[in-house]
Amino acid sequence: MNKNAQKLISGLVKGEQLYEGKAKKIFATNNPDLVIIDYKDDATAFNGEKKGQIESKGVLNNSIATGLFELLEKKGIKTHFVAKLSDREMLCRKVSIVPLEVITRNVAAGSFSKRLAVAEGTALKTTVFEISYKDDALGDPLINDYHAVAIGAATWKELKTIYKMTDKINQILSAFFWDRGIKLIDFKLEFGKTADGAILLADEISPDTCRFWDAKTNEKLDKDRFRRDLGNVQEAYVEIFNRISK
Amino acid sequence: MNKNAQKLISGLVKGEQLYEGKAKKIFATNNPDLVIIDYKDDATAFNGEKKGQIESKGVLNNSIATGLFELLEKKGIKTHFVAKLSDREMLCRKVSIVPLEVITRNVAAGSFSKRLAVAEGTALKTTVFEISYKDDALGDPLINDYHAVAIGAATWKELKTIYKMTDKINQILSAFFWDRGIKLIDFKLEFGKTADGAILLADEISPDTCRFWDAKTNEKLDKDRFRRDLGNVQEAYVEIFNRISK
Repeated sequence: MNKNAQKLISGLVKGEQLYEGKAKKIFATNNPDLVIIDYKDDATAFNGEKKGQIESKGVLNNSIATGLFELLEKKGIKTHFVAKLSDREMLCRKVSIVPLEVITRNVAAGSFSKRLAVAEGTALKTTVFEISYKDDALGDPLINDYHAVAIGAATWKELKTIYKMTDKINQILSAFFWDRGIKLIDFKLEFGKTADGAILLADEISPDTCRFWDAKTNEKLDKDRFRRDLGNVQEAYVEIFNRISK
Repeated sequence: MNKNAQKLISGLVKGEQLYEGKAKKIFATNNPDLVIIDYKDDATAFNGEKKGQIESKGVLNNSIATGLFELLEKKGIKTHFVAKLSDREMLCRKVSIVPLEVITRNVAAGSFSKRLAVAEGTALKTTVFEISYKDDALGDPLINDYHAVAIGAATWKELKTIYKMTDKINQILSAFFWDRGIKLIDFKLEFGKTADGAILLADEISPDTCRFWDAKTNEKLDKDRFRRDLGNVQEAYVEIFNRISK
């Protein structure tokens, strides 16, 4: 932990719960610029239709996300991550979330494959970036940049920053996982704005939000094991944790 | 009709039917570069789930599309239109259709309103352009530019040309209809490629493919009258024909 983070933690008091999401709770602190993210074991899929628990998922995802945020910060990506506080707790800068899910696809899978009838695992003629409008009631619909601007979800300038950061994050993470025998098939990012309008990578990066396939066997090491009842769900999260920790 | 078109028509023989779509048939001719489009009275909606007939629609749409293609050609837009041959027949250059529906939205309506819970008639912070992948089996899904390139539906260069043409067409048509007391709410275009790779505006422009609202009353003068069982369907097509003919 760097000195700046140590300074921010000293005297920090956890406050009231601000929000409870599907996989995380967010708490205020006595510092108005900081929040504590508390990772839960709850797992959901298909916009909340499927519900379950994955033992120790919160502990594993907190560790995995910490490792990946530290890697990205080192490579020059601005993130909301400040420090890991405990097994399940992460200290983060407080941001207002841009209501977009930003998805990067290196290989066809999931909703892309279903939507366009392209077999999972098919190589794509270009890396695909896509955005969904974060709205549970609407089912987080796929939108394009014009839609995002037309409804006020983001400005053209914010979108430009977000795509630039996403492209760089994809390059960093793809190389990092490849070195550990893992193909980064696709992943979902969320971004937040600080009070002064800076865009930071927010949310988490974990097997909940990425598709990881073993580079040799194509075995799935991510939440698809839960979504599709493939068994050995916790083992997949542990495997990702172990390979990242190498 | 210009001299070039007259020359192409002289000695032209209608050949076999190449294709039958929901609202049009396409016939070969003895000139391999030309086809005849024959407008039908059939009307469908909701990806073919709703079916019906609108009396004289084929005649009206052939006249409306002819007027609009002639207007666009005059303004420098390259289209597949060559000449009107008869009440229901239009002579066109033969193209291979780019498998995209290119939609321009000046005001919220239809699937945009439903998808994003934005009331019909709402002004948008930016003109919205969107593309759908033309595939009946998949339900013509909304896609973005990355998807189109990733699956080989279009190249980046083709998309750039298509968006540039669409923007110009929107400006021309919006002004043209506004002068005739009609708001051009949204419309769908299709583009085709000639044998030498040139991109032409193809398909049709008519109340089947546009939303037209009376500028004073917001009365719908388009296929929504059929889709939504509003009555006076044929009358709306006649009204558009009359206002264009002014």
